Amino acid sequence: MVTRDDALAMDAADPLASMRDEFAIDDDGRIYFDGNSLGRLPFATLGRIEQVVVNEWARTLIGSWEHWIDLPVSVGDLLGTTLLGARPGEVVVGDSTTVNLYKLASAALDLRPDRRVIVTDTGNFPTDRYVFEGLAAARGLELRLFDADPVDGPDGDSLGAALRATAADGSDVALVSLSHVSYTSAAIADMPVLTWLAHEAGALALWDLSHSVGSVPMSLTDAGVDLAVGCTYKYLNGGPGAPAFSYVRSELQSVLRQPIWGWFGSTDQFEMGPWYAAAPGIRQQVVGTPNVIGLVSVEEGVRLLARAGLEALRAKSVALTSLCIDLADSWLAPLGFSVASPRDAGRRGSHVSLRHPDARTICELLIESAGVVPDFRAPDLVRIGLAPAYTRFVDVWDGLDRVRGLA
Amino acid sequence: MVTRDDALAMDAADPLASMRDEFAIDDDGRIYFDGNSLGRLPFATLGRIEQVVVNEWARTLIGSWEHWIDLPVSVGDLLGTTLLGARPGEVVVGDSTTVNLYKLASAALDLRPDRRVIVTDTGNFPTDRYVFEGLAAARGLELRLFDADPVDGPDGDSLGAALRATAADGSDVALVSLSHVSYTSAAIADMPVLTWLAHEAGALALWDLSHSVGSVPMSLTDAGVDLAVGCTYKYLNGGPGAPAFSYVRSELQSVLRQPIWGWFGSTDQFEMGPWYAAAPGIRQQVVGTPNVIGLVSVEEGVRLLARAGLEALRAKSVALTSLCIDLADSWLAPLGFSVASPRDAGRRGSHVSLRHPDARTICELLIESAGVVPDFRAPDLVRIGLAPAYTRFVDVWDGLDRVRGLA
Repeated sequence: MVTRDDALAMDAADPLASMRDEFAIDDDGRIYFDGNSLGRLPFATLGRIEQVVVNEWARTLIGSWEHWIDLPVSVGDLLGTTLLGARPGEVVVGDSTTVNLYKLASAALDLRPDRRVIVTDTGNFPTDRYVFEGLAAARGLELRLFDADPVDGPDGDSLGAALRATAADGSDVALVSLSHVSYTSAAIADMPVLTWLAHEAGALALWDLSHSVGSVPMSLTDAGVDLAVGCTYKYLNGGPGAPAFSYVRSELQSVLRQPIWGWFGSTDQFEMGPWYAAAPGIRQQVVGTPNVIGLVSVEEGVRLLARAGLEALRAKSVALTSLCIDLADSWLAPLGFSVASPRDAGRRGSHVSLRHPDARTICELLIESAGVVPDFRAPDLVRIGLAPAYTRFVDVWDGLDRVRGLA
Repeated sequence: MVTRDDALAMDAADPLASMRDEFAIDDDGRIYFDGNSLGRLPFATLGRIEQVVVNEWARTLIGSWEHWIDLPVSVGDLLGTTLLGARPGEVVVGDSTTVNLYKLASAALDLRPDRRVIVTDTGNFPTDRYVFEGLAAARGLELRLFDADPVDGPDGDSLGAALRATAADGSDVALVSLSHVSYTSAAIADMPVLTWLAHEAGALALWDLSHSVGSVPMSLTDAGVDLAVGCTYKYLNGGPGAPAFSYVRSELQSVLRQPIWGWFGSTDQFEMGPWYAAAPGIRQQVVGTPNVIGLVSVEEGVRLLARAGLEALRAKSVALTSLCIDLADSWLAPLGFSVASPRDAGRRGSHVSLRHPDARTICELLIESAGVVPDFRAPDLVRIGLAPAYTRFVDVWDGLDRVRGLA
């Protein structure tokens, strides 16, 4: 059995251990297992926000827009090339994940006007399902929800069956949208295979990377992904409500037209001409005035992870979640918890879900009286988020020990 | 003729003079005439951002969402009740002006399914026209642009003619959308009358308040306005790209359905149920995770103006723009400038536009070598923004003196 000293030794041997010093963390004994919901504040971000507010906003004033205006694309490029396996000019940062899902899904449906089905899984994140439900209602399309395994998530069999539900070749499906990592079980979907299946049916593939970006390596280029969105306030540590990102594969950019025609996405923005002309490339995805403080916060968050290297972060993430599962099996299974995340580390993102009928109460007690902050997902999951940038092995040991102590 | 001493005396008598001390302003002799494009930084906002970042984000972490989650509606209520003449529960802060225009215009069109015309004026702000152009293209509707007087803006005659262009009773018009204050001339549109005309035709009225909010009093309630949006980084001093706002008249909230169905706009958000159910009231307009730093910045900006009182701000704004026009007539008219804003102060917002064939070069020279920051609007306008919260009468005098000196 892993002892607390073993966990301390793992920290001592951790090549990323010093990364924790880059974050503002109170030495109050609290254990934070919710970096997959709201990532921590990097010191660099604090300094950058102050610089933007005090020097750029207050002093340079409107003149700062000369460089601010490039931020959606430049931060997008940094993010895309370091963490998403995208090419330059394919990613832009701005708006919320939900708004971006709407823009890209709507644009994708316009590219398949003769098809009438949107496919996703019942376990997909609510806002994704709701956006597709709204689009289907507005356009008289079918939202086809398929059940995937609650632990292992969507796979070729479950998606394949959904694609073939009414037409044997899937020729009625316009769009397939899935989450790369399940917000419940942390299952990693096989992005290349599921994208290939969507393409075989002639559908476009839109991925939600919110729960994987910054902790799970990927190559949107190699996987053939058409479109993607994701959130920046989880593993990217961009801060509460920081702007999300959109990815549009280069080859699609000349034909894809997002529906919200804004001045920041038009050519010759400050000519303010009579008619909209979509800006070339990814810039078309920008809509209104971008949120500058949010953009620089995302930039700092991405820089920090890029410097550590995604492969190193992933290796630590796997070690953290593996330790968590080992301890849960030993200590918590006898107390009625079961592991609701994939046991194959290669198929698991950076959190571990523990199922327990009293999950809601357990989460409340952990937060209120045990100094442990997981999060609860209805109806019965305790989510243990293990952001590799600042979570220590001893945090996993102590945190699970406190869960055990609660029982 | 007004002397510099006269201007200093006006500042000495200004009941709002001390408000300037609430803003971070370098004592470098620069004169900022662009608060209508990017408002200045209030000290209170600087402190509040630091509090949110250091205490709420870094320390309280995810627990801060317990109160953050109310910000879109609570900041909306503060804004609506103090500056818009709205009732509680009618305003929400979030997303960009452009996204909000899209959401509300799209929802309005859904309420008039048998009508096929959107009416706005050719002088309306580009992003407004582009959003309507996009919606018209997507739905096969007509975007009917009418020419209003370039100085006086849309009036009953010009709007009336547009409403009656094809059907004598305007029964083909679904939506009328106008800016309350013109971004070019600063003309104030007669909101009650033009709204009434739209309603007479059976259309809905959507107002863009970006260039009036915080400097021009209004009562959305009394004017019978259906829908409105506006920007918070101009007179509200919310910071670069701060979230915009949406207004939906109470009486419409039970029937209006915005198109982007997000988890933050659904009932029982954290139950994450299988189907979207729109949250009751204005909350439905919230879409994805709101930007917290932006929201608190808007809150501080609104608080500051509300404390000063909109009537006092308006009185000072009128005095500032009147002084500007007097000096422009005396000093600049002989140099080829003409006033391109209404001369009736009651019909003029808080900036003055000066027309000159070399406006672009003049603006560049003013910024680069005269320490004066106006802005240029193609093709031939120098915009002098006179935010009443921090602009002094002597700034107007000195600034126009420097323009004169340039010639």
